[in-house]
This record gives sequence, structure tokens and C-alpha cells, in this order.
Amino acid sequence: MTRRSLIGNVPVGGGAPVSVQSMTNTHTDDPAATLAQLRRLAAAGCDVARLAVPDTKALAALPDIIKESPIPLVADIHFDHRLALGAISAGIQAVRINPGNIDSEKKIEEVAKAAGEADVPIRVGANSGSLPANLAKKARASNEAMAIALVEAAEKQCALFERFGFKNLKVSLKSSRVPAMILANRIFSEKHDHPLHLGVTEAGTIKRGIIKSAIGIGALLADDIGDTIRVSLTADPVEEVTAGIAILESLGLRTPNPEIISCPTCGRTEIDLMELAERLEREIERMKERGEKVAAAKIAVMGCVVNGPGEAADADIGIAGSKNGKATLFKHGETIGVFPQEEAFQRLLSEIRGK
Amino acid sequence: MTRRSLIGNVPVGGGAPVSVQSMTNTHTDDPAATLAQLRRLAAAGCDVARLAVPDTKALAALPDIIKESPIPLVADIHFDHRLALGAISAGIQAVRINPGNIDSEKKIEEVAKAAGEADVPIRVGANSGSLPANLAKKARASNEAMAIALVEAAEKQCALFERFGFKNLKVSLKSSRVPAMILANRIFSEKHDHPLHLGVTEAGTIKRGIIKSAIGIGALLADDIGDTIRVSLTADPVEEVTAGIAILESLGLRTPNPEIISCPTCGRTEIDLMELAERLEREIERMKERGEKVAAAKIAVMGCVVNGPGEAADADIGIAGSKNGKATLFKHGETIGVFPQEEAFQRLLSEIRGK
Repeated sequence: MTRRSLIGNVPVGGGAPVSVQSMTNTHTDDPAATLAQLRRLAAAGCDVARLAVPDTKALAALPDIIKESPIPLVADIHFDHRLALGAISAGIQAVRINPGNIDSEKKIEEVAKAAGEADVPIRVGANSGSLPANLAKKARASNEAMAIALVEAAEKQCALFERFGFKNLKVSLKSSRVPAMILANRIFSEKHDHPLHLGVTEAGTIKRGIIKSAIGIGALLADDIGDTIRVSLTADPVEEVTAGIAILESLGLRTPNPEIISCPTCGRTEIDLMELAERLEREIERMKERGEKVAAAKIAVMGCVVNGPGEAADADIGIAGSKNGKATLFKHGETIGVFPQEEAFQRLLSEIRGK
Repeated sequence: MTRRSLIGNVPVGGGAPVSVQSMTNTHTDDPAATLAQLRRLAAAGCDVARLAVPDTKALAALPDIIKESPIPLVADIHFDHRLALGAISAGIQAVRINPGNIDSEKKIEEVAKAAGEADVPIRVGANSGSLPANLAKKARASNEAMAIALVEAAEKQCALFERFGFKNLKVSLKSSRVPAMILANRIFSEKHDHPLHLGVTEAGTIKRGIIKSAIGIGALLADDIGDTIRVSLTADPVEEVTAGIAILESLGLRTPNPEIISCPTCGRTEIDLMELAERLEREIERMKERGEKVAAAKIAVMGCVVNGPGEAADADIGIAGSKNGKATLFKHGETIGVFPQEEAFQRLLSEIRGK
């Protein structure tokens, strides 16, 4: 079990629910745009958002953003430790800093002191792309070498902060190589109890990025390693949040509401399953947007009655294709009727609405 | 190490490269439509395709399909063992059968005998949705119980075929619950050396399905468990193939050609990274379609020069955003020039073309 840290009101580690993070890609010195994006992220289910603080203009915008943000914020700081000090003064809930690109330990000590006094956690961490030169060379040899180098780099960063009496650390070990990222986090979690922030870097375009992140983050979470996650995508950060939530839901770490299951299509399929599942998902999204109650936790959309109701027996409600354009509705594996397909779908929606 | 089996000319298990499977969703009794889909699947990189053989009409279409198919085929058989016998006579390269829905052991023996004589492998396997009643009830209790029930069901199926002297088996242990699927395969692979076919069932709509499959299949492959994979999606089966290949590529089990890496966008980004990465991907797809050579194995699209060239030092060629609408080109971490953005992109393409 890792130690527990708090990012504002969001607990991280120590058995707390795994939280989903993202990062704004607006210019932080534009508070209106940044807040608009933070509200979209929060609405999508994001627990914590990071934002870049690259200069004093961004820093000047922080108080307004922090005051209005619906979720706790992490300031992403590089090169200039005064930006970290300023963000802490402004009331930021957490700081991400890479001690490797701050040019003196004295400056790190100042940040550690300020964060300690304000009770603000700091994320440190190693990234395959920004390892110190001596480690970077060794790391290229293999995934194992990369994992060991990432662990060594992160341990050095932790040791530096701990030398200054600061222990409220979170740690990330990121790589664009998924096997190296998995192995690094496994090794680190065996040795230390710092809360772990999981992510795969430079994850590529959206489909490929989602797959890399799902494997790396998912493989670790499946073994109870990881306390907070970020799916990094070259895309709207809302996509990062919905992917992150889907990873947690897939592993039973967050309950989807509702869960829609469907079978892959095959030659037996008697219904346009794809279209129906997508349509159901859209209808449920709309119900949620309108604030309507969703009275089913698990909904099945199955291709045929042969396997459908049986395979989806644990669904609260389901629909399965029948012959001649009809569809069967079933509840907990028991058939409740056969109707023309559109009528069946409308009855399904009524059941989901609890009517 | 698992035993090696052959599906036509595709080796499965025994250290062979992990193969990617999909399943046609055309009606098998329509050979033209089925062959058209098989050709699209093969072009996308699919190694083996399964197709449903639900009745004698589908069976009658098999000889033509088998003769023309660009990749080996697996006949998916339920209920009627004569369809399996017919498919084997027609020259099918493999059979998927669930002994649980064939009503006598005598009929299984006939299939085992025919498959043995034709040297056709058989995939058996358990699925959380179609467990025998006695196991299904126990399995609901927890993911661990589900995993144990899946292993027990698969072992019974294997034992039945082995009793009839048939050993050329592949095994799948599938569940819509990802943690149960991971655990079942871990347990089974500790005990047996049958080649394993990995998949997550009822994986839902496309984004969610890709995430569930990437976690379940990816977590196992990361630990060297699994010999052939299928991503089940309620979508065009070509999507299953591209997702399956991306899983293998993410784990270094298949070399992407070329690999495009990009960093997540943040407030430091000086370039429209998303648009650029997507555009590059499209250009490379087009180059491949035209049969042009792609002279770079790893290409980076990075947001800024601050971290870009360093984080992507192992890229053969890369582009990073600079100030004032310019972009930096770099090779193996070394800057080769700063150009207006569009010129930089065109120079990047030329480098990729090896010109």
C-alpha cells in the first residue's frame, strides 16, 4: 500500500480510488480559455488537471484560474523555480517539477520548503525522453536497462527532496516504450511506498495513443500498481479523460453508469448491432446531459437470441436480434417479449429510464 | 513455451510471432461478400480469419471461399458437428468448436478423428457467457472465481479431445471482465502448454472495446502469455486488425513501419501537433498505398524545441515547433535546420521518402 497524499480534496494513494488526470492545452495566460477547458474536463469526469506555467504571464493568471477551477490543479514547472514558488503562493494544489532541469539544489530546497509549509504535494519523476545523460546512454540498450535507469533517476529525485525534509511526493516513471514503463513501475513499487502516477509518454495519434496507454496503465492497475493516471494523447484533453475513465471501468476500479455490453458481430447476427449499440450510447449520453435518471447498471446489445440472453445473463436489461426484423428484450437472462426492432429499442429506452 | 500449431501456413505458439486474427461479419453463404472482406482484412495485416458456418448453405460456400482466401481460415461451429466434418472435408485450415454445445461425446470423437487425419488444429475454449450451468453459478462470485471456472471448463474440453487422441488444440479463455480474463490465462499458462488465443468478449462500442482488449491482451502479452490474438469489436473487422497490430507494436512484438511518436500537447506547444501528426500519418498511409519506400523507422512530431529533439533523440527524423510559425527539423536528436512550418513539413516528407 502506498502512502496517501492529497491534491486539494482528491486523495491519491493509500487505497484511495484511482483518480484520472489530464492537462490543459490552452495558454495558461488566457484564464477564460483555460477555465472553459477545465470545466469541460471536470464535466467529463476528470479529477485533477495539470497546467503549464511556463512564464510570469501564466503565473499572473493562476490566482483567477485556481479560484474558479472546478477541480484541483497541478502546476507544471520547468527551468525556473520561482514559477513553482509563485504557483504555491497563488494557492496551487500541487506542483510537478523535474529537479533535473532546475540548476541548483539550493533552489530545489526553496521549493521543498515552500511546498512543505503550504502542504502542497510535489510530483517528481523520470521520463525516458529526459533522463540525465549518463543514464540515457545506458537506457537505450534494452527495456530492462531503460526501466532500471528510470527507477534510478526517480529515486535520485526523491532522495533530493527527502534530504530537505520534504516527503509529500508522488512519482511517475514514464516511457514511450510500454514494456519499459510497466517494468519500471513494477520495480519502483516493490521498493517504495510513494503514490504512483501512471502514464505512457509520446503516445502518438489518438487510436494508437489510447492503445499504448491502455496496455501500460492497465497492465499495472490489474496488479494493483498505480494511484493516479493520465492518458497522454495528441488530442482534445477530454479524450484523455474518457479514455482514462474507460481504463478504470474496464478493470472494475470505477463503476460505469451504465455499462453497455455487446457481442462482436458474426455471421449469426440478426440485427445491426453496431448501429444499435452506438445509438444506445448516444441516447444515454443525452439522458445524462438532460440530468435524467439512468435506471440500469448493465445493458446488453446482443446479435442473436441463440447466445444473447444467456451470455448477457448478468445484464439488468438487454436486447437481442431475432428473425424477421424483430428483437427480443430480456431482463437478467429472462425473455420479457419479442417486438419489432424499433419498438423493442424504444421499450429498452423506457426500461432504462425506469418507466 | 507453448507447443507449436499450424493454421495453414501461420505458426501459432512455440515462440512463433504472435498472430492477429479477426472474424468476418458477412454472411458466409455469400462468397463474394465474404471474400471481399477477407481481402480487406489481409490487406490490413490480418494473419488468420474466422468465419461462421451456421448451416449447410454456409458450408456449401466454403470450398470457393477457402480456394480464393488470401489468408488461412477458421470455421466457427456450434451445435451441429456435421458442419465441422464438412468444413474439414472442404479443406478448412482450422476449426473453432465448443464441445459444450455438441450433444454427444461420440460426435466430438468423430470431429477429433477427422481433424487428426486432416492435421487441422481445433480451438476449444471457455467464455464467461457460455459456461456450463454448474460453473456459471460459482463464477459470478468474483473475478477469481470466474477465472477458476474458465480454466476448469477449458481443461474439461481439452481432456475430452485428448481422450480421443487429439492433441492439436489451441485454447481460449475469454470473459467480458478483463481482470478475470487476465487471471484465467495466467493460471492456465502456468499449468498447460497449449497455444493460447487471447481475447476479451462482448467488448462494447469501439473506443471502449479497444481499451478493454488492449488492457486484457496487452497485460498478458507483456508477460509473454499468448500466441494469437483477436480484438473483438462491434465494428468493421478491419478495425479489429488495426487495433490488434497496434497492441503488438506497442509491446515491441511487431515492428511498426514507420513508428510515429508525438508528445501530448501542453501550454508550451508552438505548433498544431495534432493536425501535423494526423497529416503525417495520412501521408505515410498514402505512400504505402502507392507502394513507395518509407525510409525512416521512427518519426517524431514534437510540440516545442525545448524538449522535442532531446525527448525524441531515438527518432530517425523529427519536427518540433519553434517560435513565429517556424519548425525545427532534427535527426537523431541533432538539429538540421529551422524552416517555415510548411517547408519543414515538406522537407520532413522528403527525408521520409529517402530523397
